[in-house]
Amino acid sequence: MTSPDRFAALWRSLAPIGRTPNGYHRLSWTDADLACREWFLDEAADRGLRVQTDGNGNLWGWLGDPADGDAVVTGSHLDSVPGGGGYDGPLGIVSAFLALDLLAKRGRTRRRPIGVVAFTEEEGSRFGVACLGSRLLTGALDPQRAAGLRDRDGVRLAEAMKSAGVDTSGLGPDPDRLARIGTFIELHIEQGRALAVPVGVASAIWPHGRWRMEFTGQGNHAGTTRMADRHDPMLTFAFAVLAANKEARLRDGHATVGRVSVEPNATNAIPSSVTAWLDARAADQSTVDALLAAIEGRITERATRDGTGFAIEAESASPVVEFHTALRDRLASLLGGAPVLPTGAGHDAGVLAAHVPTAMLFVRNPTGVSHAPEESATDVDCAAGVEALATVLEELACR
Amino acid sequence: MTSPDRFAALWRSLAPIGRTPNGYHRLSWTDADLACREWFLDEAADRGLRVQTDGNGNLWGWLGDPADGDAVVTGSHLDSVPGGGGYDGPLGIVSAFLALDLLAKRGRTRRRPIGVVAFTEEEGSRFGVACLGSRLLTGALDPQRAAGLRDRDGVRLAEAMKSAGVDTSGLGPDPDRLARIGTFIELHIEQGRALAVPVGVASAIWPHGRWRMEFTGQGNHAGTTRMADRHDPMLTFAFAVLAANKEARLRDGHATVGRVSVEPNATNAIPSSVTAWLDARAADQSTVDALLAAIEGRITERATRDGTGFAIEAESASPVVEFHTALRDRLASLLGGAPVLPTGAGHDAGVLAAHVPTAMLFVRNPTGVSHAPEESATDVDCAAGVEALATVLEELACR
Repeated sequence: MTSPDRFAALWRSLAPIGRTPNGYHRLSWTDADLACREWFLDEAADRGLRVQTDGNGNLWGWLGDPADGDAVVTGSHLDSVPGGGGYDGPLGIVSAFLALDLLAKRGRTRRRPIGVVAFTEEEGSRFGVACLGSRLLTGALDPQRAAGLRDRDGVRLAEAMKSAGVDTSGLGPDPDRLARIGTFIELHIEQGRALAVPVGVASAIWPHGRWRMEFTGQGNHAGTTRMADRHDPMLTFAFAVLAANKEARLRDGHATVGRVSVEPNATNAIPSSVTAWLDARAADQSTVDALLAAIEGRITERATRDGTGFAIEAESASPVVEFHTALRDRLASLLGGAPVLPTGAGHDAGVLAAHVPTAMLFVRNPTGVSHAPEESATDVDCAAGVEALATVLEELACR
Repeated sequence: MTSPDRFAALWRSLAPIGRTPNGYHRLSWTDADLACREWFLDEAADRGLRVQTDGNGNLWGWLGDPADGDAVVTGSHLDSVPGGGGYDGPLGIVSAFLALDLLAKRGRTRRRPIGVVAFTEEEGSRFGVACLGSRLLTGALDPQRAAGLRDRDGVRLAEAMKSAGVDTSGLGPDPDRLARIGTFIELHIEQGRALAVPVGVASAIWPHGRWRMEFTGQGNHAGTTRMADRHDPMLTFAFAVLAANKEARLRDGHATVGRVSVEPNATNAIPSSVTAWLDARAADQSTVDALLAAIEGRITERATRDGTGFAIEAESASPVVEFHTALRDRLASLLGGAPVLPTGAGHDAGVLAAHVPTAMLFVRNPTGVSHAPEESATDVDCAAGVEALATVLEELACR
């Protein structure tokens, strides 16, 4: 059994990297990310793993020869959102190393290769595409398009990778590598308050999408324009925020407006336009569709009353991911009847699931906070997660 | 009588400066502003005016010797908001030059000096303080503070003035210059739809203010955080926008939220904070106070329901300006019973009014749009404005 102290010791070795008073900043291929990658290489070397960086910048540490095939791979990602928490991603990698330590202690004979993976840019926070490394690996993202993605400073992905010393000639799908993976397991911190015990098993990833909303009106003088003469897009936008919230609650879905841009954004000017992004998710696609239709209908009606223009356009849509049912049930049973629960967040495991039998383990999040500095899990729960992951790896790789 | 064609001809000579497809950009001491100043010097020279640039960068063109005192001064400003209209400011200066032409034609004997003034940075769009030039002249703004004001690129006012070749050693109050002004008249485009005839006379400037509103919550993951677990400041902010609008309508006041800043402003993140600015104005101070109290009360209540924090702080407050009553009535009568109406906008005339008998003439704005490219007035109405201004100058300077 991994003690909470043993977990805490390894956790502390990674924790200072990219930490600021406003949360973690570990965007891919920045200095903080490179330091996390160094940490990965050191920990892998300490455990005698053979490390490879694939053509997409994903890191792989191998126990045994992956060429033997039917490998059991576990891992997650090291990058963070800007100002994020420390657990989203790294917990799965720290837990993987500690689970290998437990397996070694238990002394069971390994029958399959075991891999620990750190996928690149899961958050999409630097180059705008979530699960970048796993999407490139599986062919879900065109490598030409990926190479040309630019960060907010205009730096292209290929430039950032070259600066970090990574050969980008291998960018793109890697079917041979993918074919050697027999099972993929990602351990991750749960990101809401849906898990009441230390460890759970994922059932599915909710379908979700992002929509760009444009509210247009008549820019005007805030001091002199009579209220009755206004065509103020800020009003329609404000209504949209409240309507999205209300409609999501009615359907047990999630709707969020977290990003806004206002023109000209001046204190004494009625805006000429407001652009905002809607993030919507629900347990099934028909609920997402119904949620969107309801929100759009209510905003359209309000825009007519405000004398403003409204347009909405999908920027991305991710269908539901149902994890491998038999694998999921086997793990839940193996872990003594662990609860099985869906998540509203995307993961590399969701990308892999289309190609490889895939499962996820969740570790309890007492506050439910994620993507923010207050994200946390107790050392006791994290140690329980390591124990569960070791049990799963033993079941899959040693039987 | 100034013909609309004569107005249009002089208007065309100024119109191209700083014009873009997205409106006028004539921020003070930029190339566009310097070109407008050159235009002023040329037009003043054509009319035999003696031109002075005062220590605060305001331009003065004199017919007669201002040292004689009891001068009649008219004018406005040349600078614009970013993406503004062409009339707000320049109309008063173009009209001043054309009114002098009319006076010359009428051949009446001038008994007092007449000045045409272009005040610096009326909009406050570059250095953040509205009526900068008139406030410095009258001592309403500390010159040390003014010199240190910075634009969005960090350039200080004093640096910008020096770059334009203006000596800044004279920055600050100029009581001698002020004492020579017997009357100040500013002609301005009306900025709403309150004027149904070509020309009106101002009664007052509404009291107004700016408040900074801080909404704080818990930054979190948009996909995984249950609606019931959220502390989303965007909801409280959206409610504030709608509440401010509603309370202003109930009191015949104006309330606008035109500027917003969101942290971290990411599509998949519930914001941790939203900062927004409220602009509120009404016919009298007690209505402004009641409006603010009502808005603040409703937001505070909503913040409790949303589990968010809310704080509001005044950034600026301008009390009511009542223009000189006898002068106002004299002009309205002189102009054949012109309508007398208040405005919600600040003006250099509002600053001068505390020191000098001051009046304003308004020219009809058919669409009511201002601070936006669609701001307009017809050449016929503008010619009527010139005629009215000439009549006023004749009355004040030639009797």
